[in-house]
Amino acid sequence: MTLSSLKEKPLKLGLAGLGTVGTGVYETLQRNHDILEARAKIPFEVKKVAVRDLDKVREVDVPVECLTNDWHELVEDPEIDIVIELIGGTTAAYDLVVAALNARKPVVTGNKALLAECGFEIFQLSAQLGVPIYFEASAGGGIPIIASLANSLICNHIKSIVGIINGTSNYILSEMEEHGTTFEKALEQAQQLGYAEADPTLDVNGWDAGHKALILAMLAYGTTISPAKIFVSGIERLSPCDFQFAEDLGYTIKLLVVIRSHENGDLELRVQPSLVPREHIIASVSGVFNAIAVTGDIVGETLFYGRGAGKNPTSSAVISDVITAMRDTLFPQHHTGFKLYSSDCRVMDIDDTVTPYYVRVKVADRHGVIAGIAAIFARHSIGISAVSSSFSHKDDEGNVWNDLVFMLHGCPWGQLQNSLAGVILLPNVDPAPSVLRIEPLLSQVR
Amino acid sequence: MTLSSLKEKPLKLGLAGLGTVGTGVYETLQRNHDILEARAKIPFEVKKVAVRDLDKVREVDVPVECLTNDWHELVEDPEIDIVIELIGGTTAAYDLVVAALNARKPVVTGNKALLAECGFEIFQLSAQLGVPIYFEASAGGGIPIIASLANSLICNHIKSIVGIINGTSNYILSEMEEHGTTFEKALEQAQQLGYAEADPTLDVNGWDAGHKALILAMLAYGTTISPAKIFVSGIERLSPCDFQFAEDLGYTIKLLVVIRSHENGDLELRVQPSLVPREHIIASVSGVFNAIAVTGDIVGETLFYGRGAGKNPTSSAVISDVITAMRDTLFPQHHTGFKLYSSDCRVMDIDDTVTPYYVRVKVADRHGVIAGIAAIFARHSIGISAVSSSFSHKDDEGNVWNDLVFMLHGCPWGQLQNSLAGVILLPNVDPAPSVLRIEPLLSQVR
Repeated sequence: MTLSSLKEKPLKLGLAGLGTVGTGVYETLQRNHDILEARAKIPFEVKKVAVRDLDKVREVDVPVECLTNDWHELVEDPEIDIVIELIGGTTAAYDLVVAALNARKPVVTGNKALLAECGFEIFQLSAQLGVPIYFEASAGGGIPIIASLANSLICNHIKSIVGIINGTSNYILSEMEEHGTTFEKALEQAQQLGYAEADPTLDVNGWDAGHKALILAMLAYGTTISPAKIFVSGIERLSPCDFQFAEDLGYTIKLLVVIRSHENGDLELRVQPSLVPREHIIASVSGVFNAIAVTGDIVGETLFYGRGAGKNPTSSAVISDVITAMRDTLFPQHHTGFKLYSSDCRVMDIDDTVTPYYVRVKVADRHGVIAGIAAIFARHSIGISAVSSSFSHKDDEGNVWNDLVFMLHGCPWGQLQNSLAGVILLPNVDPAPSVLRIEPLLSQVR
Repeated sequence: MTLSSLKEKPLKLGLAGLGTVGTGVYETLQRNHDILEARAKIPFEVKKVAVRDLDKVREVDVPVECLTNDWHELVEDPEIDIVIELIGGTTAAYDLVVAALNARKPVVTGNKALLAECGFEIFQLSAQLGVPIYFEASAGGGIPIIASLANSLICNHIKSIVGIINGTSNYILSEMEEHGTTFEKALEQAQQLGYAEADPTLDVNGWDAGHKALILAMLAYGTTISPAKIFVSGIERLSPCDFQFAEDLGYTIKLLVVIRSHENGDLELRVQPSLVPREHIIASVSGVFNAIAVTGDIVGETLFYGRGAGKNPTSSAVISDVITAMRDTLFPQHHTGFKLYSSDCRVMDIDDTVTPYYVRVKVADRHGVIAGIAAIFARHSIGISAVSSSFSHKDDEGNVWNDLVFMLHGCPWGQLQNSLAGVILLPNVDPAPSVLRIEPLLSQVR
């Protein structure tokens, strides 16, 4: 098939889902159609759009004859070359993606939950059939992190991927830091501004970032990884005083995704609130922005920054995949989509991962408390690099409390947990300490 | 040609140049060969390497039968599928690139001077013949800025590209800022550390950044642009006191590339030392790192950060192009390389570009001097937002001088130059003022 013959027959797209991102994709495909065809030199049109409710009033003007409320039509229409899945969720979206691949139609999706939870089946199916699935929009919104990992950094062994990939939680952390807001108050604000979903659970408990981390790790190491392998903790238990302590110590607090490959092949894979040195470039990423630092054995350190979510940035990512899919459709036997190439990935048990730590413990204002806690850390062979305490404050019942912060030398997470199990049994110690990783970051500093 | 038939016949590469980057490319193609073939699923080998001096002792072990001192052999060998040009310069490199394209061999190059100065001929020739030329390594070193502009942001009208794309000058500026070093001293240091070439002219006079800016602009707007259209000024005239003033005013000084598309289609295209607000993420890019902020109409703000030069980062970029070229070679009639799509690009005259300014004037310590200068700005309808002055200092002849800084409201560059022509004719005023742009930057702030 030559380019001139293509000019006569546009490629046909089927779009499933006309929510926020679906609407953005449809709008942009219309609005910037000229520049897309000029740059890609491939004519195309959206042939069908599947929606749940045909009668809903919409922001975009989709011709009535294009609309259907049955996604099967996209898969079954022999004219449709590429299916764009923007339904979300893991039920209908799963059925649609599997059906489209089986119908030999390349799929473009931004569905992180689907790929994180069903990556094993979906990537295997794609490999078996030789039909690609593209997913730039599944992590980092408009930031081209997927294409960069897959293509631009192709000659690199990926040593680490560290970053902020959930805008909602980053907005909350920024608010807590800048204005001393409580977690609850900052979350409420994020919801009012439309940055947080009605149900923000996955954003604040770290699992949205966890899904994205799984996808990045699968791509970076060419294999599938079960969601059971990732350790995830969220930001719900942070208090304004953690930000005060962090600032005094020269840090800020970020919900960090950490994917780090060790010399022996072991892989760290975790999402946890962490201290980041204030002079590090990642510390300066605030509000709903995302930033992902990738270190490769050849390229060294790189960092990608941008809007990690939202209608337009995500549409930009979806459409870059659509164009790639269109190019690949012309030569399907040699598509450029993600191909598994490794069957093995030894994800470390979280208990074995080592960093220094920040541990804040609320204690009653009595003598001997610091000594008691320090003795337990010593018994577990954990070194203390610094101790700070806050001014005393009274609770509603008139008891006087202090916040104590212990900065601990590097030790395995499991060893720390064992020591904390002892600490919280001490008298005069609140049983819910706040534990933050101190992430060893590279030289991306001022 | 199917994938299985490919497996039997590796693609053959011809590499011209075994300097720093050529050596890095050769080494990485050998060292990470396994992962490249696993990810790309295309077998390949380096068939020939052209060097100037066959007898030179080299860091890498290239089999003797692969070496030649005649680049024509790469072009004339019918087995060689792709030519990698890493000779540098615009003479032999020009001949090689043109000959390779004419021989219908796709070219990978990192040669910014060549593309900036001869882009018109080379891109036209590539378009005429339908033979692609790839140039990720020509701007931003290991940062995938070319692929991101060409593919990931394909649906975007590019509103602006602003950034730091010369590591040597950024290192010098960082040293001057952090340690109060003079320009000459910082340059010497950069040379000692191997960050600056023996002849650092193009780094410090802004033209290395200018070449890269031209390439980014050609790519972003799909057209060729003559080097005569870009306005370039360097960092040679900055003094440590400019950094002191900048800091007091809340800024740092960066050599900024600015490519900005106006609503009416006009394009700003310039490289100038500029004030950047300290809280902006670009202000935190120090040393030899590069950072490029791209704003698109759909994706919004993005930023790419990494090592902008050096053997390995640049090799990473070259090799990503080699893989793309290999994929495209299989289906040459539909290559994914850069294609011109626009014949027109209205680059603005520098005199018409508007920003606020920082102007430092050295004046003799006499009364009436500020009044005289302010009167000239007033006569040219240029508003003053602030005036600062330094402590007096004596020159070798015992004359007392002050440095005066005028912060000026936005006005066209030409208007500013006209006013300065008057200022330097005043008595008691040094005739070489220091002029910095104050760049309007977006919300990429803490």
